[in-house]
Amino acid sequence: MLPIAELDTLLDRALAEDMPGGDLTSELTIDAAVLARASAVARKNLVVARVFERVDATTRVTTKLADGTRAAKGDVLWTVEGNARALLAAERVALNFAQHMSGIATLARAFVDAIPAGSRAVIADTRKTTPGLRALERHAVRVGGARNHRNDLTSAVLIKDNHIAAAGGIERAIERARSGAPHTSRIEVEVQSLDELERALAARADIVLLDNFELAELEVAVRRAKGRAILEASGGVSLETVTEIAKTGVDVISVGALTHSAPAADIALDLELA
Amino acid sequence: MLPIAELDTLLDRALAEDMPGGDLTSELTIDAAVLARASAVARKNLVVARVFERVDATTRVTTKLADGTRAAKGDVLWTVEGNARALLAAERVALNFAQHMSGIATLARAFVDAIPAGSRAVIADTRKTTPGLRALERHAVRVGGARNHRNDLTSAVLIKDNHIAAAGGIERAIERARSGAPHTSRIEVEVQSLDELERALAARADIVLLDNFELAELEVAVRRAKGRAILEASGGVSLETVTEIAKTGVDVISVGALTHSAPAADIALDLELA
Amino acid sequence: MLPIAELDTLLDRALAEDMPGGDLTSELTIDAAVLARASAVARKNLVVARVFERVDATTRVTTKLADGTRAAKGDVLWTVEGNARALLAAERVALNFAQHMSGIATLARAFVDAIPAGSRAVIADTRKTTPGLRALERHAVRVGGARNHRNDLTSAVLIKDNHIAAAGGIERAIERARSGAPHTSRIEVEVQSLDELERALAARADIVLLDNFELAELEVAVRRAKGRAILEASGGVSLETVTEIAKTGVDVISVGALTHSAPAADIALDLELA
Amino acid sequence: MLPIAELDTLLDRALAEDMPGGDLTSELTIDAAVLARASAVARKNLVVARVFERVDATTRVTTKLADGTRAAKGDVLWTVEGNARALLAAERVALNFAQHMSGIATLARAFVDAIPAGSRAVIADTRKTTPGLRALERHAVRVGGARNHRNDLTSAVLIKDNHIAAAGGIERAIERARSGAPHTSRIEVEVQSLDELERALAARADIVLLDNFELAELEVAVRRAKGRAILEASGGVSLETVTEIAKTGVDVISVGALTHSAPAADIALDLELA
Amino acid sequence: MLPIAELDTLLDRALAEDMPGGDLTSELTIDAAVLARASAVARKNLVVARVFERVDATTRVTTKLADGTRAAKGDVLWTVEGNARALLAAERVALNFAQHMSGIATLARAFVDAIPAGSRAVIADTRKTTPGLRALERHAVRVGGARNHRNDLTSAVLIKDNHIAAAGGIERAIERARSGAPHTSRIEVEVQSLDELERALAARADIVLLDNFELAELEVAVRRAKGRAILEASGGVSLETVTEIAKTGVDVISVGALTHSAPAADIALDLELA
Amino acid sequence: MLPIAELDTLLDRALAEDMPGGDLTSELTIDAAVLARASAVARKNLVVARVFERVDATTRVTTKLADGTRAAKGDVLWTVEGNARALLAAERVALNFAQHMSGIATLARAFVDAIPAGSRAVIADTRKTTPGLRALERHAVRVGGARNHRNDLTSAVLIKDNHIAAAGGIERAIERARSGAPHTSRIEVEVQSLDELERALAARADIVLLDNFELAELEVAVRRAKGRAILEASGGVSLETVTEIAKTGVDVISVGALTHSAPAADIALDLELA
Repeated sequence: MLPIAELDTLLDRALAEDMPGGDLTSELTIDAAVLARASAVARKNLVVARVFERVDATTRVTTKLADGTRAAKGDVLWTVEGNARALLAAERVALNFAQHMSGIATLARAFVDAIPAGSRAVIADTRKTTPGLRALERHAVRVGGARNHRNDLTSAVLIKDNHIAAAGGIERAIERARSGAPHTSRIEVEVQSLDELERALAARADIVLLDNFELAELEVAVRRAKGRAILEASGGVSLETVTEIAKTGVDVISVGALTHSAPAADIALDLELA
Repeated sequence: MLPIAELDTLLDRALAEDMPGGDLTSELTIDAAVLARASAVARKNLVVARVFERVDATTRVTTKLADGTRAAKGDVLWTVEGNARALLAAERVALNFAQHMSGIATLARAFVDAIPAGSRAVIADTRKTTPGLRALERHAVRVGGARNHRNDLTSAVLIKDNHIAAAGGIERAIERARSGAPHTSRIEVEVQSLDELERALAARADIVLLDNFELAELEVAVRRAKGRAILEASGGVSLETVTEIAKTGVDVISVGALTHSAPAADIALDLELA
Repeated sequence: MLPIAELDTLLDRALAEDMPGGDLTSELTIDAAVLARASAVARKNLVVARVFERVDATTRVTTKLADGTRAAKGDVLWTVEGNARALLAAERVALNFAQHMSGIATLARAFVDAIPAGSRAVIADTRKTTPGLRALERHAVRVGGARNHRNDLTSAVLIKDNHIAAAGGIERAIERARSGAPHTSRIEVEVQSLDELERALAARADIVLLDNFELAELEVAVRRAKGRAILEASGGVSLETVTEIAKTGVDVISVGALTHSAPAADIALDLELA
Repeated sequence: MLPIAELDTLLDRALAEDMPGGDLTSELTIDAAVLARASAVARKNLVVARVFERVDATTRVTTKLADGTRAAKGDVLWTVEGNARALLAAERVALNFAQHMSGIATLARAFVDAIPAGSRAVIADTRKTTPGLRALERHAVRVGGARNHRNDLTSAVLIKDNHIAAAGGIERAIERARSGAPHTSRIEVEVQSLDELERALAARADIVLLDNFELAELEVAVRRAKGRAILEASGGVSLETVTEIAKTGVDVISVGALTHSAPAADIALDLELA
Repeated sequence: MLPIAELDTLLDRALAEDMPGGDLTSELTIDAAVLARASAVARKNLVVARVFERVDATTRVTTKLADGTRAAKGDVLWTVEGNARALLAAERVALNFAQHMSGIATLARAFVDAIPAGSRAVIADTRKTTPGLRALERHAVRVGGARNHRNDLTSAVLIKDNHIAAAGGIERAIERARSGAPHTSRIEVEVQSLDELERALAARADIVLLDNFELAELEVAVRRAKGRAILEASGGVSLETVTEIAKTGVDVISVGALTHSAPAADIALDLELA
Repeated sequence: MLPIAELDTLLDRALAEDMPGGDLTSELTIDAAVLARASAVARKNLVVARVFERVDATTRVTTKLADGTRAAKGDVLWTVEGNARALLAAERVALNFAQHMSGIATLARAFVDAIPAGSRAVIADTRKTTPGLRALERHAVRVGGARNHRNDLTSAVLIKDNHIAAAGGIERAIERARSGAPHTSRIEVEVQSLDELERALAARADIVLLDNFELAELEVAVRRAKGRAILEASGGVSLETVTEIAKTGVDVISVGALTHSAPAADIALDLELA
């Protein structure tokens, strides 16, 4: 339920970027009346996150696998039928979106799958998104089964070390934030040590972000904070480390790589003339 | 020399996306008059590709390492001084750009470094760019020492298998393209086999893209095309395979991963209050 | 610390709206070289909320009273010096912004002033803002001393009667929301009766919005919810009723009128030729 | 007959403003397949000015009362049917537009109704509109039965005191304006006294704006100007004073409050699940 | 005094259109540090209408001949100094604007010069402008010494034959227009014959547009309308016919060709390296 | 196959430019329910290049003559049926586009027709396009039977005299360009003399632009370059000189006037009420 207009702005920009004055090759080599049908094929395992929105008013897209489904190599994700020139002109932009979104959803799914059964931990994204694509990338994160963190700087309060330094201490920073923040926002504080955790808990922070804590420290933190605050582990989390982090008992594990380093999914478009 | 307005459009969108109504935390925890100074630090080896453009009219950015320089872990890339609230509000968006661009430049540099001495091959990007960021990503590719392919569908002709099928054969497709294309554009044709290469050469294609050719096939192709056309190898090229591909003697090796799968570079911003 | 670009978008639109092809009258009646100086005068009591941003690169604005100061009739808010044609062309747009923002800040201040000493209640705005002006209006609300509610539908969860009906009950709605919402968002539920309040508290809602409750009901609600949830009173709150509502002990009183029905402040621009 | 694109720009901006990344609550609490039907109900007397434009391609709006009709409390203005998530996500933006436009139309109607039978006076708006919403607000003014003044600074000439001062007198200002203005524009001059009125009439102004004239002065002005110019009364006109002003015989009464201080109309949306 | 933002929108679009990803040639052939100086030279007689606005923050433009001055062949209009790459990248866009605007100003000047001494006729443009460039083109018309007609459909009323047919006659159309139009707008009616002129005058039209009248008819029309309405001659007016039309005594001669068929002025940019 | 969004951006801008607040005249003189039918009539010989895109969702356009067809005086190009107010409001913008595009296509056709049978020369446009309209104008050029030159500065390399001076000679400029340009771009060099031609050919330029060469020089150039480079003649080419230039044997003749000086085609819209 992203605003259509926002999606269109992105897609229109991408289309204009790719064909400022039309598609030379298709217009030169293909008669205007030729129709075609194309299928998006998954070459390796992936989660389908994003499909054609609108490429041409005369084309018709049929979804074959719902968003969030795990696709096997060779599965057809969606097919699109219409004017051959239009399909070829739009192909690259459509795939650029689909591969990017699917790449993120696939990586999110891998992190979620790495959480051991019985763990309370959820995987969350961060604000480390590709400029201009945040809404889409957060959607892909959800499609992959993970959670979203706060949407933006206006949505909620997260006090970091620099805020603490500028405010004159954890207690003062939390107090200032609580006295002005929207009541819908929990107050989150980032801490670098168990000592800082204690101070944050004493100042009644709602959430504490444990920045780059060792596993042993995380375990101590969980014991100390029990019932007093939501605990978020963050900092260089990878598929190799996420399972052990989850076992410490933290509530949230946030992963910047979900959106800033997901490799593109391998999706190809096979076309046949009608 | 990208148009300022284009950059601003991207940056403005990214800023609005991240703070639709301001930065709650900084405004609540930091006095308006506090000044600060921040430094961007490279944690591991990378090529600096992109720096702050404009984040606030009152901040001042100083570049410490020129674009394209190889940075060692701990090197300071640039520093920025100004209002503490503004630095913290802009931090994430600035880093999102910097990490994305540097990631691409770093990966491009790795591919270029993998070309053996004496090889004629150059590394080129593709149109597999992140929607909306093409100009920036192509700039990062150049900063990393690689080449750009055609900018968009309007810039030059590249005839693919589907165009050939729709046009009724390689010869017919090349003839149609040549009869209407801007004379500044070479005519490039994608082929799937050595037989198709022969037909493309016979029809006097200017460039032939060898799609997913085995190394042995590439060597044959190079011998046959000698002096008759520019040869471009493409399809699943990786850092593991690029050196051997270059040794076959092809002229251009195009790599989609440069722009669609480069992991973000690790850049952090260390802030100290003034 | 609103993004400059967002402000410029609004202002540019407003300027284009007001002079699609220039200012006929000023260009026809005033020589291009004439300079002038204008002062914004408060005719009745108001809070200064907003001043000229940029109207012309050659004009210079001097603020005389800081934002948030209570101005008396006749006080000069700011002066602006520059080309006479430019001042007259920009006058109306500048005043339209200033009068609108000051009107909201003034009304917010009046509501805040109506909270009796010792009350815990804070005044908050709502999402009932003028389309396109939300960031500015929320800024004006803060300038007037009141709080902002959640910024938008993506920022935080607020479950209303229709969500409850569609989800199949208060408990189910809260459970679904908690299982997917960003952990930075408190879960708020709107209730229509004391019975619904009980169910919301039992389901551990973080905030309960008491919709159109009578004063007596509010008092009961405060006693029952003590320490279990944040209570927000909403619905037709006016300057006549807000003091009594605050006395009931609710935590937040949200007032749509702050942004949808604030009359424009009376600000005039007195100009003298230089 | 406002350009669709202009309306869409406004609405799209308003929607993006309200849900930068979707509607958390509806998506979390309501199944995607749930359908619903909503009705906009008038709680007190108002003129319906504005209805849903487009909120979702799958929703269907039915107008129950035509624009300009006087609605009684409880009347249904329009109903909308469609996906429950979409209706709830769009509700606030739709109502923000509807309440703002209806508020203006209702106030315009009140001013028009206050003109005594037999009076020649018409009510007109001013350029004191909400930035960005001028076209919509002027439309609401017409729906309410009042007239529009000049649309913008490019449309027509209105010489104010500052223009007169800069030009060197009323006569000189009128002469300069007449010698360059589009012939489709009447020449209007603002005057502060009966003496200035004489000079404006002598210089053959087409329209004279009587700024903040007392009732007695207005009567004198009407007698003197009879047949020589159109007379417009302006300055602090209220529902209390408009009837007497109309009785003086002026042709036009312009009222800034129509657009800058109209309280929002009270419109609610009642939703039932299908 | 066009809004800067409007100009920037145009220029930014033009620059993005011309270098979506930078200027290949300049970046490849010129070192980044090279400085240069360029002069705009008039090769034949023209009126200078438009000069560089902003092309690069580091370039400096000096105007040598003021707007509206008649330039002789070889005169230098303006010079620009700065980075050589930037000057060459911006050259074509700057000249495209300058040549277009100067072409219009030059043609407008030619029409104005063709009005015989003593004639009351003024030359006016029409709404036949290049889409998107109306404000600039109308400015060029004024620079050339001619007048602007109404700016747009919202500015003023012009009743054409189709409006008359749909309204049910000239009298009815004028009456409807007068009853709703802003009082700042004169009521103009287009007529096809002397009979229709009579009806328009009887209905007290303020302006009558005589569409494609013969010279003899124009003379009759002028005699009949004397003092009763402003007369505008329109329809296929050329430099060959305009003098005779002016001699008939009409007040306004509107010429679509001013903006839709003015050939580009011949302006070149001579560059020397610094 | 221009991106719909780009066309809409242009058209929307043009519509907003022409009716910022609706069409006064049509709304005042015509009942909302009146339907009409309009036909676009060619008054003199022209090539139909452009037709209504979208003006109103309720109107229906029927093309009578395909793009590129030669129309005789009086031929109907297209008809449009719908709401009378909408047709009249959109008329001018639609015609402004149609007349501009048709004017260019007609002029392009005239140049193409002037090429003698048997000549190899093709007519090409340049980057001297109207700011913001390049994609449309290049489309019109193709409709008229001519070719497009490079689309923009990013598409391909064209080395001019200033690049040569800054690079330090033709050879150095070509070498630098070849070492960095996309392999899809031919390297074009502009030369001012036969000597420079020799140097460009020796440096293996792919295309040589002969700038303002005399006919005799062109003939020499063609003999010398035979088979070594594509030759483009440019500079002040007119309908009077193009035939002789074509006879010299050059490959391409580029004509700036195609897009910067084509007079508008004469297209009118005849409307009848339904």
